[in-house]
Amino acid sequence: MGVKNNYFAYACFWCSLLVNIFLSYNLLVGNKWSLSWSTNAAAEAEAVASISCSGHGRAYLDGVVVDGKQICECNTCYDGPDCSNHVLDCPADVNSGDPLFLEPFWMQNAASSALVVSGWHRMSYSFGDQTATSKELEKSIRKLHSVIGNAVTEGRYIVFGTGSTQLLNAAVHALSQDNSSTPSKVVVSVPFYPAYEEQTEFFATEDYEFYGDTSLYRNNSDDTMDMIEFVTSPNNPDGKLKRAVLNGPSAKAIHDHAYNWPHYTAITSPSDEDLMIFTLSKLTGHAGVRFGWALVKDKTVYEKMLIYTGENTFGVSKDTQLRALKLLNVVLEGDGRSIFNYAYEKMRTRWESLSQTVSLSKRFTLQEIPPRFCTFFKNVRGPSPAYGWLKCEREEDELCYKVLEDGGILGRVGTRFGASSRYVRLSLIKSQDDFDQLLQHLKVLVLQEAGGTRADI
Amino acid sequence: MGVKNNYFAYACFWCSLLVNIFLSYNLLVGNKWSLSWSTNAAAEAEAVASISCSGHGRAYLDGVVVDGKQICECNTCYDGPDCSNHVLDCPADVNSGDPLFLEPFWMQNAASSALVVSGWHRMSYSFGDQTATSKELEKSIRKLHSVIGNAVTEGRYIVFGTGSTQLLNAAVHALSQDNSSTPSKVVVSVPFYPAYEEQTEFFATEDYEFYGDTSLYRNNSDDTMDMIEFVTSPNNPDGKLKRAVLNGPSAKAIHDHAYNWPHYTAITSPSDEDLMIFTLSKLTGHAGVRFGWALVKDKTVYEKMLIYTGENTFGVSKDTQLRALKLLNVVLEGDGRSIFNYAYEKMRTRWESLSQTVSLSKRFTLQEIPPRFCTFFKNVRGPSPAYGWLKCEREEDELCYKVLEDGGILGRVGTRFGASSRYVRLSLIKSQDDFDQLLQHLKVLVLQEAGGTRADI
Repeated sequence: MGVKNNYFAYACFWCSLLVNIFLSYNLLVGNKWSLSWSTNAAAEAEAVASISCSGHGRAYLDGVVVDGKQICECNTCYDGPDCSNHVLDCPADVNSGDPLFLEPFWMQNAASSALVVSGWHRMSYSFGDQTATSKELEKSIRKLHSVIGNAVTEGRYIVFGTGSTQLLNAAVHALSQDNSSTPSKVVVSVPFYPAYEEQTEFFATEDYEFYGDTSLYRNNSDDTMDMIEFVTSPNNPDGKLKRAVLNGPSAKAIHDHAYNWPHYTAITSPSDEDLMIFTLSKLTGHAGVRFGWALVKDKTVYEKMLIYTGENTFGVSKDTQLRALKLLNVVLEGDGRSIFNYAYEKMRTRWESLSQTVSLSKRFTLQEIPPRFCTFFKNVRGPSPAYGWLKCEREEDELCYKVLEDGGILGRVGTRFGASSRYVRLSLIKSQDDFDQLLQHLKVLVLQEAGGTRADI
Repeated sequence: MGVKNNYFAYACFWCSLLVNIFLSYNLLVGNKWSLSWSTNAAAEAEAVASISCSGHGRAYLDGVVVDGKQICECNTCYDGPDCSNHVLDCPADVNSGDPLFLEPFWMQNAASSALVVSGWHRMSYSFGDQTATSKELEKSIRKLHSVIGNAVTEGRYIVFGTGSTQLLNAAVHALSQDNSSTPSKVVVSVPFYPAYEEQTEFFATEDYEFYGDTSLYRNNSDDTMDMIEFVTSPNNPDGKLKRAVLNGPSAKAIHDHAYNWPHYTAITSPSDEDLMIFTLSKLTGHAGVRFGWALVKDKTVYEKMLIYTGENTFGVSKDTQLRALKLLNVVLEGDGRSIFNYAYEKMRTRWESLSQTVSLSKRFTLQEIPPRFCTFFKNVRGPSPAYGWLKCEREEDELCYKVLEDGGILGRVGTRFGASSRYVRLSLIKSQDDFDQLLQHLKVLVLQEAGGTRADI
């Protein structure tokens, strides 16, 4: 009896010791031992992340709270408390360039991309060096361009913006002539991103004005007419690689490289222009963060853009800069290719599905993008643009937007891009649900063309 | 022997069991059990927070990394790897309105103010309701004004800005006349916050222009001249409570209430103006976050300001809005008085020390602020303004900035505020180190006035 008791006692002890080891491991190696003031915030964030939205939505920390819990914010055509209800007869919404296609990547990289912000993080207007810009973030951006090979950063100053949106007008401001008898003329080639015109007109000063299509001034030999040309490459909406049309001493260019990443285009060579603008939105998908940067060659232009962002918003939020740094460091982790492999594969697959469907149609056509050698992927690659630039070919389909709307697809009308109403831009960078719905409705339209019905799909 | 072994075994078991209870408590009640993806980020943030900077600086997550560790960013006149070296003969820098005086409050409230941001937090351009503004944050702002009693929010629209800085020009834009033969004239009373003039001139359009001192137009009976008056209350730099000077159908006012909090002034009644602007910077001290809001009565003005922030930056960063929500919720915790008690006590004490020192001088005088009944603290309270508005009284001390600079104090010259060079603004809202250095140098100056020397202090 005594010996049995002995064995039992030691058995209990050894079991308990194993549990000790397990719990200690969990605390120590799992880094949890040392945690103190961040624990509650971490638990709160993880609780929200674990709210199930059926894969068709997600809950956020600052979401509307109902019955003590943040609500699910659902993808288009899904609703219900957990987004599990698929709404019938719901049009596909592919109007906006909202880059949710990258959301799954970040969910898969939860641990490396999480960020803990202390209550006293960067309260001051300035960084330690009395500037409004993070040196670590600047370093990461230069490294990023070096790894991807899509832009020259050597000898370039960097200006941060609250989105590249802020930097577009900052650039126009900086390049336009002070005290000139005539304002600088801002031009861009059709089709173009609507914001260039809308923003330039909204913030018009005596120093510049929006003038229209570059081609009207192509043969302008009047060197006294100062021109500022927006060059978007790859272009929005059609994904084409573009160069400046105008040249000469009175022609300046603003190169918008929002889409100049392996997700959307072959990288042909490092862009080496005087003023290049990039945005986090289309690189990591974090449009909501509002962060962009400009690489500027000329010191005077750089200083003017700095003054602009200073007078406008006193620089970029320190929280935004911290978040951008964290996200870029994840992008650069390992061989720095992970997000690009993910993104390119996704965009390539979507383009294939879309163009396959459209190829069965005579009613619709898509833009053509030739295969190109990509210095990043080191091979010849086909298209994977951010948008489909769809054209309605039938004579009676002049209002292509209406044709698609009747077929349950909400795109962005071509006239917004200075093009004809025969064109509609289809966003291919939204969530998988959005793309699936686009394809589904498009297939029906194409089938109807062939005399079929929805039931045939 | 067997019985002794038995006791020993059970003793080991009970010890181990106690350790298990301790470890489990730490994991479970401390919320750490369930943590997974946020753990590393939490550990990283806590590690940076624990870097010692001798109480004269702090390290940040995105600080410059040297030898694998973020560097200490030191307060003025301190340096060295841990900010422990007090630099001799170093002038006090009280130029900027950088609100670091609130940093200790947030360090004391580390747990409630910590924020964990997931890698996929709000990637979209819009919130779930397709707007660019957080409804939860809007709710918190309305609640805040209700608790403090410093502004009417009922019937007001709210516009968010990247700092109130962005909203100042958005307001001028929105209030100015489109298609008028003459631009609206922007005026403000002396002394005034320099940004009103600098910003209005930098972003000048055909619709408005900066015109100068309000008093020049006080008796303007020309009702066709549209006027936009900036009214800052409490005023920057002198802390006085102000009202609009101009009235009539062609006079509109932008009320800048940046300092209208119990930290800096008695709350006399809820401000009930048509356009009121506030900033997080001077409320919680988070100038680096870049967040402000406007309470707007008129729907058309509200919509114009929304369009402005949309065209300018596509709204405010979602990260900024999340951080602002977290900070405001800490402000509203409990009885919602904690930060105000802390801040008022700090500012009151600083003003007392400053005015006591200056009262010993004939060379310098400070602005006078009468005691007032505060509806928030429910008592009569003395001054606690954000700035000292120092005047050099001696005839030969026309360049007051130089007098102070020679005495080791860097303020902001009065001419920047449209006032005479006899005035200098002294920032009282920076860190304790900054205030201590200001006082130290000022005492020397006052003593020298009395024929004494530094050794007499």
